Amino acid sequence: MANKQKSVEDIKAFCFDVFGTVVDWREGITRDARVFLARMGRPDIDPHAFADAWRARYQPAMAACREGRRPYTRLDVLHRENLLDVLSSYEIDPGSVPEHELEWLNGAWHRLDPWPDVVQGLGYLKLRYIIAPASNGNISLMVDLARRSGFPWDAILGADVSRAYKPHPDAYHALPEALGLRPEEVCMTAAHNDDLVAARECGLATAFVPRRMEHGAMQKTDLHAEDDWDLIADDFIDLAKQAGCYPQL
Amino acid sequence: MANKQKSVEDIKAFCFDVFGTVVDWREGITRDARVFLARMGRPDIDPHAFADAWRARYQPAMAACREGRRPYTRLDVLHRENLLDVLSSYEIDPGSVPEHELEWLNGAWHRLDPWPDVVQGLGYLKLRYIIAPASNGNISLMVDLARRSGFPWDAILGADVSRAYKPHPDAYHALPEALGLRPEEVCMTAAHNDDLVAARECGLATAFVPRRMEHGAMQKTDLHAEDDWDLIADDFIDLAKQAGCYPQL
Repeated sequence: MANKQKSVEDIKAFCFDVFGTVVDWREGITRDARVFLARMGRPDIDPHAFADAWRARYQPAMAACREGRRPYTRLDVLHRENLLDVLSSYEIDPGSVPEHELEWLNGAWHRLDPWPDVVQGLGYLKLRYIIAPASNGNISLMVDLARRSGFPWDAILGADVSRAYKPHPDAYHALPEALGLRPEEVCMTAAHNDDLVAARECGLATAFVPRRMEHGAMQKTDLHAEDDWDLIADDFIDLAKQAGCYPQL
Repeated sequence: MANKQKSVEDIKAFCFDVFGTVVDWREGITRDARVFLARMGRPDIDPHAFADAWRARYQPAMAACREGRRPYTRLDVLHRENLLDVLSSYEIDPGSVPEHELEWLNGAWHRLDPWPDVVQGLGYLKLRYIIAPASNGNISLMVDLARRSGFPWDAILGADVSRAYKPHPDAYHALPEALGLRPEEVCMTAAHNDDLVAARECGLATAFVPRRMEHGAMQKTDLHAEDDWDLIADDFIDLAKQAGCYPQL
């Protein structure tokens, strides 16, 4: 049952992975890291490599919470800890960096821009479906991203509501629970096949939208759907078309 | 400190009580109860009295959760239990009512309409502030109300996020916590003085907007601000004016 394909007609809500699927974290972090590194007198550091190094510490940090070695701790805090660690790895002493500079750079995750199809696609999907982020990012981070770019979310779901980090099953079960829907009525939408594997295990419908530049031009992973996801779309506008809410002109 | 007046300049987010402050629960429940009672062959029952009787069971039901006699249970479930109790009190056997009729009437709380100034006022406030419900209603109830009337919330906060029912302090502390703000940066907005007493105890800023018809024309309570709340407005449009985000034409 949990692994069966769902009927698209049953879907009442789309929930979205955000980092990579909705917003381009790599270029956003790189943009602000470039400014920060110049201010720190370290323009020699490749800001893309800096962004990748910061992001590489994302899964291990959440794993501590997921595996119960640490209570649920919001992503802003984990990002900040990881930032200090990345700085040290580049031989920048975090203690030498003014507090407001650290806060500003950590806030880069609140200033990420969306892929170009996102705002239009979400607007169409909202005509017919409940739409909400299902991100590991905390509520205030999601609110700042939405206000910056105009994401018309109906609610902010995700780690701060479920107190669980994907791919922990609690993170997915909390979505239909919060929306008063059955699991098969909620469609997890992501550019990452492993997110959809976990969502399907929890009985959710699944939609894959590739983001082939998430990790830059040399990206090797998640270039294609790796299973028979219920919807496989080119981008959010195509997803809205397939979900029957693209306006007929 | 907690009881001191806050500076309006510090406010970064407005959080709203919903039942009574944003939406007119009494007329909405009455409207649907009238239809339901006619279908049940009981047009003799006054639908306003029915609505009041249903609402009267609201605080006692939440008190069980608030006082730890029962785990957090979402309001849709409490409303449903209370409905069965009200039906019995009117000598309508709940077991004789078709399930879809019970579900439909319980859903009346998802179909409440706002006071006439709400959508315009929230639109103005959102220009400058984060806006979110801080209701005892569950997320799906808040989502349905927002989609029905176009409330442009930035996030859905409240009992389903804090797992606590107002006026428990956890319900208020969770608001700045979720938004990444200090307590004095969050302004609790309500038509009920007791909600604001509890919010101020937790260090939040406070705004009072009277809803003098919430309980009908004979209303005796909450006709006026009963303390020096940080903002006291006639309605949400006046609140937006006082908060500096009414457009200058």
